[in-house]
Formats: sequence, structure tokens, C-alpha cells
Amino acid sequence: MERVYNFSPGPAVLPESVLREAQRDLLALPGVGVSVLEIGHRTKWFENVLETTKSNVRRLLDLPANYQVLFLQGGSRLQFSMIPMNLLPAGRAADYIVTGSWGQTALDEAQAQGEVRVAYSGKSTNFDRLPAAGEIKLNPAAAYVHYTSNETIQGVQFAAEPAVGDAPLVCDASSDFLSRPLAMRRYGLLYACAQKNAGPAGVTITIVRDDVLARANERVPTMLSYRQHAEHNSLLNTPPVFAVYVVMLVTRWLLEEIGGLTNMQAANDGKARLLYEVIDASNGFYRGHAKPDCRSAMNVTFRLPDDAVEEKFVSEAKARGLHYLKGHRSVGGIRASIYNAMPTAGVQALADFMREFRKKQ
Amino acid sequence: MERVYNFSPGPAVLPESVLREAQRDLLALPGVGVSVLEIGHRTKWFENVLETTKSNVRRLLDLPANYQVLFLQGGSRLQFSMIPMNLLPAGRAADYIVTGSWGQTALDEAQAQGEVRVAYSGKSTNFDRLPAAGEIKLNPAAAYVHYTSNETIQGVQFAAEPAVGDAPLVCDASSDFLSRPLAMRRYGLLYACAQKNAGPAGVTITIVRDDVLARANERVPTMLSYRQHAEHNSLLNTPPVFAVYVVMLVTRWLLEEIGGLTNMQAANDGKARLLYEVIDASNGFYRGHAKPDCRSAMNVTFRLPDDAVEEKFVSEAKARGLHYLKGHRSVGGIRASIYNAMPTAGVQALADFMREFRKKQ
Repeated sequence: MERVYNFSPGPAVLPESVLREAQRDLLALPGVGVSVLEIGHRTKWFENVLETTKSNVRRLLDLPANYQVLFLQGGSRLQFSMIPMNLLPAGRAADYIVTGSWGQTALDEAQAQGEVRVAYSGKSTNFDRLPAAGEIKLNPAAAYVHYTSNETIQGVQFAAEPAVGDAPLVCDASSDFLSRPLAMRRYGLLYACAQKNAGPAGVTITIVRDDVLARANERVPTMLSYRQHAEHNSLLNTPPVFAVYVVMLVTRWLLEEIGGLTNMQAANDGKARLLYEVIDASNGFYRGHAKPDCRSAMNVTFRLPDDAVEEKFVSEAKARGLHYLKGHRSVGGIRASIYNAMPTAGVQALADFMREFRKKQ
Repeated sequence: MERVYNFSPGPAVLPESVLREAQRDLLALPGVGVSVLEIGHRTKWFENVLETTKSNVRRLLDLPANYQVLFLQGGSRLQFSMIPMNLLPAGRAADYIVTGSWGQTALDEAQAQGEVRVAYSGKSTNFDRLPAAGEIKLNPAAAYVHYTSNETIQGVQFAAEPAVGDAPLVCDASSDFLSRPLAMRRYGLLYACAQKNAGPAGVTITIVRDDVLARANERVPTMLSYRQHAEHNSLLNTPPVFAVYVVMLVTRWLLEEIGGLTNMQAANDGKARLLYEVIDASNGFYRGHAKPDCRSAMNVTFRLPDDAVEEKFVSEAKARGLHYLKGHRSVGGIRASIYNAMPTAGVQALADFMREFRKKQ
């Protein structure tokens, strides 16, 4: 079976070399004799996978020693609740910077757990922009400040961390984690479900600073306690062994084949530029959803003149091997997700198609 | 790489035909062109996987229409908290029948969420038996009664559901789910992590009766709400796509290659008999941990004369391709986990080895 170009927002494209290695060893791991789907999580083999994955993440992010890397389950959606359960004590409030649908959902879930404030919301313009300097109204006593580095649905992405003062910065980096270097010292806690840039669905990576961990509420169910997961080295219960293993392969690909996150960012920026250039040169035929200075390098969102043309676009693209381009219903139009593992050739093919399609209309 | 016999308690052995199919399609699903690790959970392909898996579970268990099948994350460990959070209102108490380490952990987690009673505990004899008739002291007003159908660590297994009156029966069936037919109408809620008989680690299957669901507490975090998961058909967030897909392959194997759970139970009972016969004919050289009438068909636990002989047993077995036989530290000795996918040939090889090993001592 030939592989198509997969522009899905997540689960999303993975490096072909990673898939080939996972495939090769799926029946029996070399030197072990059982499948990665069958191997115990207390074996030396998996201990090595877990340590290697942690170490790869540390190297890629140049992570200071006072941060822990946890492998959890339940996706970002469970993090939305775990964060206030662990980090928002009674009598305190947390600030939320809401720049898209996921930030809104994070806010809604947190509201059920404690007192939250909206420090910024871009809802009135359907989240087509990020806050300008001075638009974020922070509470100096906030327990933490939460933001979403990249909004997958709207396609807006922070170029750098917002300035939030002394409160711990908490970031949902689900859709741009490992796509570029990060100033990790700026973060109190950063989390990402794996299924965009880091691996398959089924594992969530949470990176937390020791002092934030030390203050975390212990009176939460064991499986929802960051402290418990940290104390048990992510082996509190049976972890999603296969998903962690694929994250190991992906992080090794980033280190060895790509050469680290600076290179990855350059490639990602180059890919995004190919599409935004077509949009900007289209005389308004393609209209980007995000304001130009807030554009995402991961999810390129745009509209066409009308719904019928958009449908035609999606279907003709598919016939050319360019799949899963339909945008989310809340924004409409087209969304091209071009994560780390999307090859430049795939983005080039889409850019070429966009030019041709426009000419034919 | 040749495959060894994997007696691991979980993650555990899977059918080789399932592994071969997953391997064959790992790079690109036929007719789809992307890997199962990359495919979106809102695609028609995955919709079909989800419905087929549900339907297979329904057929295997002859499940009445008023039960829902949910695919969750977080393992049984998260169920230990979700059950009281959803089903134990303030002012009520729940009964726990504790027959092993997992039942004890379920009780401990529930205690943090509400009022619980111990209706039976086998702790004083290191969980080597099940309650006799009359030993279970039930509270007629219990919100529910929780028990563990098979205790993986101690190797004790209920042959049938305990009689618990009118309270909903809640069962942790993690380590014998799909190993035999079940009188599903007896259950209010039954759950199982997949990594014993149903698939790889990373997905948990919860089956819940509609009236139990209707009474569930709605004021819990969305990801911990059975009602939310049921209303969203297990697509509240991105499910662990690959793990669900493997459960589909395993349930299809049970239906098409094994011919259903009655056949599966006959095979499992036959395998267990091979080992228990060796134990019983060993003149006390092999000493079973579980009382004979409480023995598990899934996890066969036994001791040898001393620690040194047990170590020798494990190492010589390994040299014969019989792996992961060391027992859990709380029981010691040997544990042979012989789930559905362990072939009779593997169990026969272990039984033969046990006879030979004894003769040589």
C-alpha cells in the first residue's frame, strides 16, 4: 500500500523510519523474543525504553535538572482537570489566557475545580489573533497562568512565552511540543498529548518543575496526582508501553536524523512559509483565518470563496494524494496540519495544488 | 527473531495472528494509505473499528441491550477512583469484597473518595482463598458491591459471581475478562484493563448498565464521568486508537478462530489443569498458593522448597524458552500466567519442564 500525504490535525503523520522500525520488531523484539505489545512494564527492556525516552526529551529541550518528565494517560483533556486539582488551592485563583478552542475547554474544565479568571480571551474575533502587549490582565496573586502555545483548530501560535510575572506558567503545548526549542526555565508545567509531534495517541507527556511539584495537592486520587506519578517514575500503574516506545523512536529520530529542535524549527518554518506564501499571493482567493503575525507553523487554516469551492478543494486534493484537509467545523474551510513528520515534499505538493486549483476557478 | 513462551502477568502474550496482522498494516492501512498510528479518530475507518470492537465484545458476552461498552484510559487504577466518584453518593457506603492485592488497592482508593465497608477480606491468610458461603457480610443499603473476579498476584479466581442481593455488583475483571462466558445480567458495572486477555496496555474496557449510568454523579471532571464517555461514544477526547484497534483484532480472533468464550474457557481450563496436576502430583515439592477450590485458570501461583531452588527454576525455565515466571514479591515463588493467547503447547512445555526439574532435585 502506498502512503498518502496525511494533513490530519492529530493523530497525525509520523516519520516513516519510525513506522518501519516499529513494524519490523512488532512480532518479537530482537534479543527479547516477545512483542512490544506483550512485554511487561517491569522488564529491563522497558526500563531502558522509559529512561531513553526521558533522556531524549531532556536533550531535545535542554531541560534543567529541576524538571521531571512524566508519561501519563487521558490526553490533554485529563490534564485540564488535573492541573487545577493539583495546583489550585482553595482561596486562590488561576489565570487563563484563552486564544482558541482548546484554551476555552481548559478554562471550562478548570472552572469546575476551583476559581479561575480570564486574563485574556480572543473569543469575540473567533480566536483569529493573540493578545497584544498590555491586553493580558493578570492577577499578581494567581496560583498559575495557563495558556495554549498553539491552537490546533484556529491555527494561532505564540512565537514566544507570554510575560506573566512570578506565577508559574502552565502551558498546553499539545500541538507544537518538540517542534522548536523552548525556554524551559520559563515554565512551571508544560504538557502535550503525543499524537501531534511526539507519537501515537495514548500517552501524554507532562514536564513539571520541582518546586511546583512540591506544592501540588496530595489529596487527589492517586492516578491524578503529579507527585505520585513523579515518585513512581511514571510506573504507578501499567503505562501505555507501546505508545512510550514510539515516543522513544520519534525522539531518537529528532536527535539523530533531524539533528535537534533548532533544525526541526527551521524545517517547520520553511514548510509553513510555502503555504502562507500561496495564501498571501492569491489575491484574496485563499483567506487565512489567523492574523498574519499570529500564524501557526503547525496548522495552516484558511477559507476559500464559498463552501462549494472548499468541498471541491478537499475532494480534488484527496485525488492527488493530499488527505484530511477539511477544517474544523468551528472555523470552517481548510486546515493543513504540517507537523514535524510531514515532509517538505508533501507541503510543496499541497502548495503546487493550491496554485493550480486557484487558476482553474 | 524466534518467539519465546511469555508467562508474564500483564502486559501479556497476544495471539500471533493478531500480531502478524497489526504488523502487516503498520506502515499503511489497506485502502487508507496512512498507518493506524497516524489515523484520525474521527475518520470512517476508526468509526468502523470502534463499532466493530463494541459489537464483538457484545457478541462474545451475549451482552443485553441495556449495557454500554466504553473504552477508557488510565487502567484499572483509575477505575478504582472513578467508581466511587461516580457511584458512591455522600451519605451512602459501598461494600468491598477483598480477595487479593488488587481488591485491596481498589478499597484503599475508594476510601479516599467516600465511605466504604469491608464485606470480606482474605488478608489474614495472605489471600489464599475466597469467602465461603456466609463469610461475606453485606450492607443491604450498599451503594454497590465491589469484587475482583481474578486476583492476578495471588492466583485466586471466583468460579461464579458472589451473591450480593440488590446492590449493583461492580467487578474488576481485569485479568479474566473474555476468558470465559459471564452472566452479564448479574453486573451493574464490569471493567478490565486490556493488557491481560484483550489487547495491549493503554485501553480499559468498562461495561455499565443503563440504570447505573443514569444514577451516576455528573459533578465529576468530564474525563472521569461515565455518563460523558457514554454520551460521546468513547470519543470525548482522542481515544488510544491503536490499542482499540488491537482489541478489535483480538475479539475477532476470539470469535472467528476460537469460536467464542465457551470454547475459550474449555481451552483455558485444560491449560490450567496441566499445571495444577503437576503441582498436586509433586508430593509437596510444588506448593500451590491458592486453596485448590479457589484456583485461578489465569495465574497459577506456587512455591518451591526454598528461594534458591525457585531462582534455579526460573533461570532453567528461561533457558528452555519459558520466560517471565517469577512470582510477585508479595507472594514469592513462581507465577505462570496462562491467559487466552498462551498456546497449550507453551503450557505443556512448562508442565514437562516442571516434572523434569523436580526429578533432578
